[in-house]
Amino acid sequence: MKSTMYFFCGKALHATLLSTIMLAGTGSAAMAESTHFDYAHQAEWNQVHGDRQSPIALDVNKATPDLDDDADDSIRISGRTSDAVVVDNTNTIQVNVLPGNFATIRGRRFQLQQFHFHTPSEHVVNGKRYPLELHLVYKAKNGRLAVIGVLFQEGAVNPAFDAIMRRVIRAGRAEPMREFDISQLLPANLSYFHYLGSLTTPPLSQNVEWHVLPQPITLSSAQLDDFHRYYTANSRALQPRNDREVLYHQETKP
Amino acid sequence: MKSTMYFFCGKALHATLLSTIMLAGTGSAAMAESTHFDYAHQAEWNQVHGDRQSPIALDVNKATPDLDDDADDSIRISGRTSDAVVVDNTNTIQVNVLPGNFATIRGRRFQLQQFHFHTPSEHVVNGKRYPLELHLVYKAKNGRLAVIGVLFQEGAVNPAFDAIMRRVIRAGRAEPMREFDISQLLPANLSYFHYLGSLTTPPLSQNVEWHVLPQPITLSSAQLDDFHRYYTANSRALQPRNDREVLYHQETKP
Repeated sequence: MKSTMYFFCGKALHATLLSTIMLAGTGSAAMAESTHFDYAHQAEWNQVHGDRQSPIALDVNKATPDLDDDADDSIRISGRTSDAVVVDNTNTIQVNVLPGNFATIRGRRFQLQQFHFHTPSEHVVNGKRYPLELHLVYKAKNGRLAVIGVLFQEGAVNPAFDAIMRRVIRAGRAEPMREFDISQLLPANLSYFHYLGSLTTPPLSQNVEWHVLPQPITLSSAQLDDFHRYYTANSRALQPRNDREVLYHQETKP
Repeated sequence: MKSTMYFFCGKALHATLLSTIMLAGTGSAAMAESTHFDYAHQAEWNQVHGDRQSPIALDVNKATPDLDDDADDSIRISGRTSDAVVVDNTNTIQVNVLPGNFATIRGRRFQLQQFHFHTPSEHVVNGKRYPLELHLVYKAKNGRLAVIGVLFQEGAVNPAFDAIMRRVIRAGRAEPMREFDISQLLPANLSYFHYLGSLTTPPLSQNVEWHVLPQPITLSSAQLDDFHRYYTANSRALQPRNDREVLYHQETKP
């Protein structure tokens, strides 16, 4: 008993341990205030919601370094897209892809569903808001969503972006993109910020694992103007981080 | 163009494809009704919540077989518990464990936080409600919770259960359990139902990946009576499954 006296010796210390563990098990301060649950009136229990919304501000100095102690926490893109169709869905320019493009993210396999753009960027990364942000939306077998966010800054022309904008459907007639290579829209380095968040458009479901890449890719000023002919402001406002963990996973590759 | 005419040739077909992909990307019927999002009044956007609550009824005939096509979707328990302390927290008998006990579940690593009991069982499995259900609560680095649910049926005495009940704290003085072996509370076969759900007590957070093992373990009638001296009814009512995917992962081991 002696070796753990510092830990188990008193009620006050024990209560602290207990509430710490309970907090650790839920990530919500509400748990600490919960004392007794009335099972006879459980229809009156309140559900905490709206506490894990996206986007948020991401800062490497306020993130927890994600040591690669788990099996493999990297983002691994496998395969290229199948044929895809580009649509203006009245909220953004979106590319719907046929099944077949996968990513393994933090040990779990996801299938690419669609990708789309927001201007200006929804996430603010290390204090900076970028002119455009790409969201690659993936889904796992259990329904869990994972989004990879890619930032654009003005610079060299981006040929892949041109290929997309040329094929925007205006009158309901689709000209598919053939075997679009998703890697053309990713930076060389796949370091990422990771946190648990939500869709950034209704229904705003909190079912999304976010992976925002801080290394931007480029598009030209004329290309940004081209996007702005469709949309000039389709970004959701920043949401509170609350007590969420934000991890920063650093890749040693370029 | 000809080879994909069946797919891209008309607006009606295209609209079907588009909405299907959008639905697939959110898992919510609300998405299908969303047409245009007003970014100038986004504070008025409604958030869908309360649609993925626990517990639910689980039935192997209504679940999707979880083919092991991903890297490794099994539950792998690694290590044994560190010292642990058993408390009556006024809602249940709960065992808080010190860090060091891990599980790899569907490719991701989780650390055991605590485990506790509900009577009768919260999940109804293949039409049956059991007298007791154990919840092993794990947490990943990103804050994601994973719970393994174990069902008890009346039968042979369970020595591990006795070890726990002997150490329930009544007067704030903790007698820790030394190196409690968590595998004593698991069935031989780790097949499981898997779905995305919530905590079953306030704050009812929808941040939980559930894994409910259909193979029960036993405790004696006297042991169940012993638990009922503390609690006789601390189970949440069944919640609607809604449009959630329920996977059934079958292990070929015993």
